[in-house]
Order: sequence, then structure tokens, then C-alpha cells
Amino acid sequence: MSEEEKKNELLEICEAGDRERLQTYFSEHEPIDIAQETEEWDSEDLQKLTSLMEEDDLAYLMEQAEDKQRIRLARTLDNKRLLVAFGYMQKDDIVDMLSDFPIGRRKDVLNLMKAGDRKIITDLLNYPDDSAGGIMTTQYIALREDLTLSDALKKIREIGARSEVIETIYVTNSAGQLTGSADLRDLLSEPEDHLLRDIEDTHVITVRPEEDQEEAAHLVSKYDLKSIPVVSNTNRILGIITVDDVIDVIQEEANEDMLQMAGVSGEESLDTSLAESIRLRLPWLLVNLATAFLASFTVKAFESTIAQVVALSATMTIVTGMGGNAGSQTMSILVRDLANGDISWDKAKKPLFKEILLGLVDGAACGLVTGIIVWLVYGNAWLGVIIFIAMIGNLVVSGTFGFLVPVVLKKLHADPAISSSIFVTTATDVLGFFIFLGLAKAFLSKLI
Amino acid sequence: MSEEEKKNELLEICEAGDRERLQTYFSEHEPIDIAQETEEWDSEDLQKLTSLMEEDDLAYLMEQAEDKQRIRLARTLDNKRLLVAFGYMQKDDIVDMLSDFPIGRRKDVLNLMKAGDRKIITDLLNYPDDSAGGIMTTQYIALREDLTLSDALKKIREIGARSEVIETIYVTNSAGQLTGSADLRDLLSEPEDHLLRDIEDTHVITVRPEEDQEEAAHLVSKYDLKSIPVVSNTNRILGIITVDDVIDVIQEEANEDMLQMAGVSGEESLDTSLAESIRLRLPWLLVNLATAFLASFTVKAFESTIAQVVALSATMTIVTGMGGNAGSQTMSILVRDLANGDISWDKAKKPLFKEILLGLVDGAACGLVTGIIVWLVYGNAWLGVIIFIAMIGNLVVSGTFGFLVPVVLKKLHADPAISSSIFVTTATDVLGFFIFLGLAKAFLSKLI
Repeated sequence: MSEEEKKNELLEICEAGDRERLQTYFSEHEPIDIAQETEEWDSEDLQKLTSLMEEDDLAYLMEQAEDKQRIRLARTLDNKRLLVAFGYMQKDDIVDMLSDFPIGRRKDVLNLMKAGDRKIITDLLNYPDDSAGGIMTTQYIALREDLTLSDALKKIREIGARSEVIETIYVTNSAGQLTGSADLRDLLSEPEDHLLRDIEDTHVITVRPEEDQEEAAHLVSKYDLKSIPVVSNTNRILGIITVDDVIDVIQEEANEDMLQMAGVSGEESLDTSLAESIRLRLPWLLVNLATAFLASFTVKAFESTIAQVVALSATMTIVTGMGGNAGSQTMSILVRDLANGDISWDKAKKPLFKEILLGLVDGAACGLVTGIIVWLVYGNAWLGVIIFIAMIGNLVVSGTFGFLVPVVLKKLHADPAISSSIFVTTATDVLGFFIFLGLAKAFLSKLI
Repeated sequence: MSEEEKKNELLEICEAGDRERLQTYFSEHEPIDIAQETEEWDSEDLQKLTSLMEEDDLAYLMEQAEDKQRIRLARTLDNKRLLVAFGYMQKDDIVDMLSDFPIGRRKDVLNLMKAGDRKIITDLLNYPDDSAGGIMTTQYIALREDLTLSDALKKIREIGARSEVIETIYVTNSAGQLTGSADLRDLLSEPEDHLLRDIEDTHVITVRPEEDQEEAAHLVSKYDLKSIPVVSNTNRILGIITVDDVIDVIQEEANEDMLQMAGVSGEESLDTSLAESIRLRLPWLLVNLATAFLASFTVKAFESTIAQVVALSATMTIVTGMGGNAGSQTMSILVRDLANGDISWDKAKKPLFKEILLGLVDGAACGLVTGIIVWLVYGNAWLGVIIFIAMIGNLVVSGTFGFLVPVVLKKLHADPAISSSIFVTTATDVLGFFIFLGLAKAFLSKLI
């Protein structure tokens, strides 16, 4: 069956109001695929779909759908049905959805909740979206250390179905503080009358709720964890962050770095509105415009030289263009490596020296090719020599600045991904023009 | 204790040959941290460390260490100790290590293995590093569908300790083919005399061993899986890929995209050798040199115009520079969005139209600022008007090419991250110079 037919099938079912066929369809397809399929539907068709669905299927669909789509789905439900669906959902997903709701409806829904649930959700809503607290779930297993393994297993049978992770059980003391974690494998294989205390691993890596989600993701990835507990300053467990949420964070942050290096916000995507795109992109362009003028004024300072040797105007952009390219190469490697931690000045010396050497070698190679072509095209060997030297000079500049700018920005606690390129481009443009045109001016008599 | 002192502590222990203190040290520190600490050590100190260690600790250390460091560690061990350590390690990690070994030692180690292990390892070694087969582990739980839940639990107690994932149990038929998966939660809570067949979910997402690791990672991330089974063409389960390996793949691939957009290979890092960096980066620079010449020849075609109005040479780079910046903005968003799947021509029309409109608006804004400054600096209003129009034109060019180039490359099954920027830059440079200088030539009389 083609994509097109599949879409039509679901739409047909909704038009026909055929509950039974819809249930079959749901059992045969993954919720995420259905969520993506219905992204293009208008509200009327969505309404037909949700009115035919059971609340548990609605819950799975909303859990898997993108932010925008789940809000559209929620809009087709009255508060009563929404609450029933919430009953099947993870708390962190409910919080995610509610934080995108208009304030009025959010209040209404919170008021209709049971007091216990409302307390949990309201607490979670207080953490910023991109903090550890903002992405944690409260569905985990924490048991007292004085439980026997057989009692612990009994509890796990009861509450396991509602918790996101069961391979790791968190262990607490009588004051409710986290003392360690136990592996379900050990619970299953050790003697039943042992206590959790006997099998717990007291070396648990934790994260605080106010910490950046990126830090939590970094820990999970570094230590190959299945989940990481979020604890208060008194070491009480507040929630856990699971590995599927960590994957989302890692993808988000990696994409953000890539986009920011090009002057785009991580928030932007293909379906961002025109007005929003202008707001997000124009400021960056205007900042770049300032650096473009810096470069332009450098050229302007040499206008009298260019007036005498007009060939300079066509060749100078080769030098700055190549400097820009080589600069982004160095810069990208630095931004990537700095994302995984700081770099000390001690350790920086050797790779910086390498980048400078690399600038010399690559500059000589590119400069040689350029010099020969320029010589042949313009019939002036001196022009070829000058562009050869300028190319080496500017590729050394690009290696140096491509390396130092991200390192210094990181030291100043600025994000190297965001503003490195502006400084590196300025350096390679301004110094590139300066070196080439300066040399041309010095040897002007040879060029005329 | 400072970082420096911690390093000294471990070194001191090794110098003193104090096995007991070493064991305490290992129980108090994570293997990954110890692995990173010892990266700077010389082989002699490493030798001292490993000679004092138990084989199980050696195994955890090698599992967590970076590729290079674990080879250095292995080099300090004779084959006999290495095999004992392998006994504590996951098969996929052993394969990773062996594939980095010199061929001679790899053969020796394989020959010393038990026949069963050798067969598994040799099979795994045959899959490319970056394929699903290359990153899968053979330590998983697969049970026959006609087992009762109590028998299944008994098996899990026995083999669970050696398998990477126990939350998901894979279910096979009598022919060994994968029929579904069972959740450990259900095994624990359903009546003991039920069969695995009764609780299995027959809707399992699988991947083939020859598939790209990126595809496997994409599936795990999309469907929020804890692991994904790798199956043969007869649907026999060969291994599983776990979520911690998926995180590594996702980080690798996201970094690769970022680096490739800047013309750097994903293999390169700060400690790549000079010769290797030249080999990896110079070809890209030479390709860029060709496009730089294309732009240069465009300018050359207008030399007579520039000779008469030398101000053009200082101002023309503003137009192309801004086009380049706006082009990378559009391109980065496309590369990111295309990484998550294709875009159909149908869906492309609206966002392409938006990018063109955005080029008009951003171009008008930047062009206005530029036009006014140029007018004031050069005292010629016509030059201001020409650069205003050229800026709009070139930002429309950059929106169009920044959008179409990645989309077309994807359609042609090329990686948009690798070569988009070369085409987009060529377009914005060549057309940027052409529009600006062409307008200047047309209105030359107003500029002199």
C-alpha cells in the first residue's frame, strides 16, 4: 500500500465513523506514525478521529506526537476526556503539554485533577523547560533499603507497569533520601531474604533539578546509564530522567550548535512563519553587515592602488574567500571538541601550533595553484607571487583565529557555537584584504 | 581534592605497587573517569597500572575507554590475560577492540578463543563498523514462545546477568524466528502458567544487519525503544542494538553533519596529525578554490567598469558576503530538516516561497542600511540605490539556492551536509557580483 493510500484509509475510516476498523488500524500501526500522518489534517477531520478513539489510544497518540500536533489533538477534546487520557500518560509528557496550553485552559484542567496529581504537575511546571527538572518523570521505582528482596519484587510487580524504567530500582533510607540503586538482575538472582541494602550500589550519579538538561544528558551518555535520578539539595529523589528523553536532548543540542554556527536559532524549522523567521534571522544578518563594512573599509583604504591595478579587485576576493573556508574548518572542529568540555591553555599550545603549520602548508598549496593561474591570466608574475604570499598569510590567520576565537569565547563562558563565526570571518576578511592589498601597494611599481 | 592531586594519587598507587589501595580507588571511581585520567600516561605507567589490576576491572576499564586508549591498555597485556578480561566484556566491545588490533595479534587472540566465542566474534567482525551488524551485541535474551512465564523467569534469572537489556525479552518460534517481544513487567505481573505467546507483542520493529547504523538509531529514537533486534533475511535474531550505542551514533552523526558543512571530515579531532589533517582538509579547499575563481572571473568581466568607478571594488564584497551569510542560514535549516527524512516537492513549494519572501524582506532591510551608509560615504545616491537593489536580488538568490541545493542533493541521494555549501556559495558569489556590477555597468553614467 502506498503512503497516499494509507492516508486515505485512515481518513475514510473517520468519514465512515467506523470504530471497529479504527481499532484494527491502531493495533496495526505505531502511534508516532499515525501522529505524523495526521499532521496535515484540518481540525474538522482531527475532531472526527478523536471522537471515535478510546482514551488510552488518545494518550499514546498524544505522547508520541510533536508539540504542535498534540496541542491540536487536545483542542478537539473536552476537559473530561482529556483528563481520562492524561490518566494513561507519563507525568513529564502531561507537563510538556500543559506548558503549551493557553493559561485559562491550563488552570481549568489543573483544577479538575486529583489533589495529589495536581501537586506533582504544578511542581514540575515550575522547572524551566530545558532544566533537568523540566524533563524528568515522576514515574520511577524507589524502595526502602530495609525491604527484603521478595517484598521488593512484590512492590515492583504492583507499580512496575506504571514506571518508565524497571531495570534500575532506586533505594532510599527511612528519611526518604537516596542511598543507592539496585539492579533488577540482582533482585531476581540473589536470595529472597536478603535486604535491598545488601545488593544496592551506593555509587549513584545524580543531577540537581535546576541543572541544564544538557548536563544531565552528558552524564547519561558518558556513564552509559539507563536513567539518572534527579535529587533535591537534601538528597531526596524528585524524579528520574530516562534515556529516551536524553536522546531528544542530544539531538536538540547538536542541531542547535550546527544552526547557531550559521546564525540560525535552534527554534526555527521549515514551518516557522515568515514574521518569526525575520525576527530570528535579521538581527544576525545586521551584525554581519557591520563586519562586512569593516572589510569594505579596508578595501577602501587601498582604492588608489586598485585604481592603478584594477586586476586586484578581481583577485582579492580569492584570498579572503579561501581564508573564510579554512577558518570555518578549524572553527568547527574546535566548537565540536569544546562541546564535550573545556580545553586548558596547556593542552591548547600543541594543536594551535599544528593549525598554524596547517595554514602554512594548505596556504602554500592553494597559493601555488592560485599564483600560477593568476600569472597566466594576467601575464604578471609579480601578481602571482603576491597572491601566493597573501594566501599563506591569510590561511595562517584563519588557523590562528579559527582556533583561538572559540577557545577564548568558552573561557569567557560564552557559547562558541553562537558567535565564533562572526569574529573569525571578520579576521579573515579584514586581514586577508589588508595583507594582499598591502603587499600590492608595496610592490606597486612591479604591477603596473 | 583537585584534579591534579587525583591524578597523582593513582600514579602514586601504581609506583608503590599497592594492590589494596588500587582496589579501593577503583571502587570509589567510575571506570570512564579512570580511563580518561590515564589517557596522558606513558606506556610504562600504564603497564604498572594494568599489572596490578584484576581482570574484571581491566574489562570495565577497556569497555569504557576511548578506542585509542583501550588499544594502549590491551598492548600492556599478554594474550592470556586479555582473554580473561574479554570474558567479562560485551561481545560488541570485544569486536570493536579486535578490529583496531594489528592483524597478527587479532588472529592469535581469535585462535586462543573457545570455538563458540570465536564463531560469534568472527561473524560480527565481518559487518562494517558503521552498519547495524557492526554495532549490535549478541548478549540479549531470546526465549521460545511456548515457555510458561515461570520457566521464562527462571531462564531470565540465569542469563539476565550477562545480557545488556532485560526489560525487553525477545520471543522466537520453534524454528528460531523472531515472533515478538515481551515486557518484563508483564512477565512479573501475569499468571505464572501463561505462555510467552500469550503476552508477546507481535509488532516488533527490526533492522537488518547490513543497514546503516544511522537508520537503526533513527528507529530507536523515533519509536522510543530500549533496544532494537537485528534480524537476518529469514527473520532469525542475530543480535540487538542497545540505546547507549544509539546515543553514540546520534552524537557521531550530528557532529559529522556539522563538520561536513564546514568541509571537515567527522574523523578529524584536535589530536589528528598534521599530515592527516592536510589529507582531510586540503581537497575541500582546492574544490573551493575553483568556485573562488568562478567568482573572480565574474568580477574580471566588469574590470572596465570598476576601472572607472573604483568605489565598486570596496562595496561589491558587502553584497556577496551578505548573500553568503543568508544562504548558510537557509541551508542549515534544510540540512537539519532533511536529516530527519525526505521532503516532497508538494510540501516544498510553500517553504521555498517563504524563503524567497524572506530574502526580499531581509534584503530590503540590509540593503536599506547599506545603501544609506554607502550614499553617505561615497556621496553618490545612485550607488546607494544600486547596492540596495543588488542586496535584495542576492538575498533572494541565497534563499532560493540555500533551499533548493540541499533538496536536490537529497533527491539525487547525495548527502546534503557534505556539498551544499559549495554550490550555495558559488551561486551567491557569482550571481551577487553579477547583479551588483551588472547594475553598475547599466547605470555607469550616473556613477561617474
